[in-house]
Amino acid sequence: MKIICTQENFKRAILNCERVVSRQSTLPILNSILLEAEKGRLKISATNLEIGMVVKIGAKIEKEGKITIPARILGSFVNNLPGGDNLNLEISGENLKIKSGNAKASIKGLNAADFPLIPQRKSENQLILPISDLKKAIEKTLISVANNEARPELTGINLTLKEKEVFFAATDSFRLSEQKINILPENKNEQTYRVLVEKGGNVIIPAATLTEIHRITGNLEGGSIKITIEENQVFFENNEITLVSRLINGKYPDYQHIIPKDFKTRTVGDKNMFLSAVKMASIFSSGKTNEIVFKISSDEFKTIVEARSAEAGENSTEIKNDVLGPSQEAILNSRYLLDGLNSISTSQVAILINGPATPIAIKEINEQSGEVLDDYVYIVMPIKN
Amino acid sequence: MKIICTQENFKRAILNCERVVSRQSTLPILNSILLEAEKGRLKISATNLEIGMVVKIGAKIEKEGKITIPARILGSFVNNLPGGDNLNLEISGENLKIKSGNAKASIKGLNAADFPLIPQRKSENQLILPISDLKKAIEKTLISVANNEARPELTGINLTLKEKEVFFAATDSFRLSEQKINILPENKNEQTYRVLVEKGGNVIIPAATLTEIHRITGNLEGGSIKITIEENQVFFENNEITLVSRLINGKYPDYQHIIPKDFKTRTVGDKNMFLSAVKMASIFSSGKTNEIVFKISSDEFKTIVEARSAEAGENSTEIKNDVLGPSQEAILNSRYLLDGLNSISTSQVAILINGPATPIAIKEINEQSGEVLDDYVYIVMPIKN
Repeated sequence: MKIICTQENFKRAILNCERVVSRQSTLPILNSILLEAEKGRLKISATNLEIGMVVKIGAKIEKEGKITIPARILGSFVNNLPGGDNLNLEISGENLKIKSGNAKASIKGLNAADFPLIPQRKSENQLILPISDLKKAIEKTLISVANNEARPELTGINLTLKEKEVFFAATDSFRLSEQKINILPENKNEQTYRVLVEKGGNVIIPAATLTEIHRITGNLEGGSIKITIEENQVFFENNEITLVSRLINGKYPDYQHIIPKDFKTRTVGDKNMFLSAVKMASIFSSGKTNEIVFKISSDEFKTIVEARSAEAGENSTEIKNDVLGPSQEAILNSRYLLDGLNSISTSQVAILINGPATPIAIKEINEQSGEVLDDYVYIVMPIKN
Repeated sequence: MKIICTQENFKRAILNCERVVSRQSTLPILNSILLEAEKGRLKISATNLEIGMVVKIGAKIEKEGKITIPARILGSFVNNLPGGDNLNLEISGENLKIKSGNAKASIKGLNAADFPLIPQRKSENQLILPISDLKKAIEKTLISVANNEARPELTGINLTLKEKEVFFAATDSFRLSEQKINILPENKNEQTYRVLVEKGGNVIIPAATLTEIHRITGNLEGGSIKITIEENQVFFENNEITLVSRLINGKYPDYQHIIPKDFKTRTVGDKNMFLSAVKMASIFSSGKTNEIVFKISSDEFKTIVEARSAEAGENSTEIKNDVLGPSQEAILNSRYLLDGLNSISTSQVAILINGPATPIAIKEINEQSGEVLDDYVYIVMPIKN
């Protein structure tokens, strides 16, 4: 291998791949990045056996070849190069020689033949999502993912594919987030997409995979991502990067029936007012379940958030606001309520209640019309008194 | 106690005090903040027995009185109040009642009589330093403070008071930072200052104390701090805050004689070029001492930074720059060299060497004249080959 490429492209590719590389592995090859120069471009691969990533960048190839290089060393070196100059990469024996401007290095490599195979996509892409929609769906649902492995299916985000939309959902069985994303007809391959919908249209993607996708797309505003779902794998692709991840086996709970269709009472108000009231109450909340009392008074058009603990004392905040329906009172875990309020992107929020022992919903409000929006819903179960 | 004060003043005072409060103490009173309403103002005190802080803010006092309140609870509550409204504070039995806008709380207190006494300053202030100078001296010297307690005197910053200047210095015996600050005649109390200088003019202030002073003055650009040195204590004061800290007993090493007066060779260049070269070399540096080779070539007017390790490979960066004096070569700990370069505030830096086994100095460069500046010096010992 003997190639020349821009420092900027190489740096971006290495830093993306470096994140995927497992850091704790005792197998040195898994702490490494595979570089392959072929057909006018440089292919850079990394895997931790759960997630694999392949990045292709343009390069002037003088001689094809491949080598595996420790990710940490390559990443740190490239990251500290002063910008500007092109990079010259050349394999010499077991080493990769790098030259850029006045800096040069020779890094010990490993045999490229030992690098694990990263699965290749076999089918055509099934759907395309705008990056902004995908990022939103990931942000809203990640908060509700279970963080212990007792029920592996809950450590992922569930995608339900319908004819015209895809639902992202996550729950740790205490609370639930669901975000609907519409799919434009031109953004799906009708034939292959239909096959998926007919099969049940349900896949569970590991939360770590979607966190990684969110990170990679972090600085991209426009553009879109192709998502291909196969038997045991899912592929995410843009122009430069392909990320492949295993799917989680198992049946996702049939959560949709626990989301109430209608609510008797709703309180609508400024998100930050609710947040500040709940944060203050959480200081005085008692027990392992962080209990606070959430009251809606329909006579006085106000919402009251209260807490009391034997050690700290007590607190109460009144919010004068828009109340519809009969008075309500429920005991909630302040942490779950805070997560829900924080997941709202609009400045006004609706909290919807049926009674003290039925699921409570948090939804967004259209800034112009004041309407309750239904694309996103956060559900939390009250604590039984 | 029954008072009214602005939320803004109270919040700022509580958040400053909260940092001083010890968090691990098993004595609840040490996790608390003392509030005392007297003579038209509210006095707020906190201590961890090493550092004490007293903040005085204006308040409308309807009834004098005092109470001790758990710092974490008071801090979190005040921090989450929506801004704007005034605060009403009132003692009711063992509790502090707080009311602001639509929020209210009642926090359980402890007996104010049990709160530890915070030492009061007995003498007149000795010197005044502009906040910008004080912050600079703290930043430059903190990096060299020893982080283990084997030699307690090295866990502090040493102040040497001279007729017209004060020297801040720190060393962990591997490297040393010294910053000189000039004292204007009007910024010292001639009589009491002279007493200190004649006594030897040496005090060791705990690094934690100066870290705290740096934090408190973080957002202040102008203004100055009064520093009063007594037998076992030092006081720092501005208009609102008094911080008192114990001094470290012990004799600070007589470091000044290890700073060479003259150097045979100097290399002057862009700080970021040196930083980037040393960072790259540090990836390949070997052993526990992070060895890299630093070479100055007077024939070719360049500086070369190199490293080599059996596991990672090797690296070399050449910097074409301004070299004066004979060629030199020294083995350095890359971490200490990086700390030194990072402590330089000017864009150009001078590295001064006498030989492979004598102290190396890093100094700042006057941006206009290109002169080497002597107010700050960072000294590092080479590793013997």
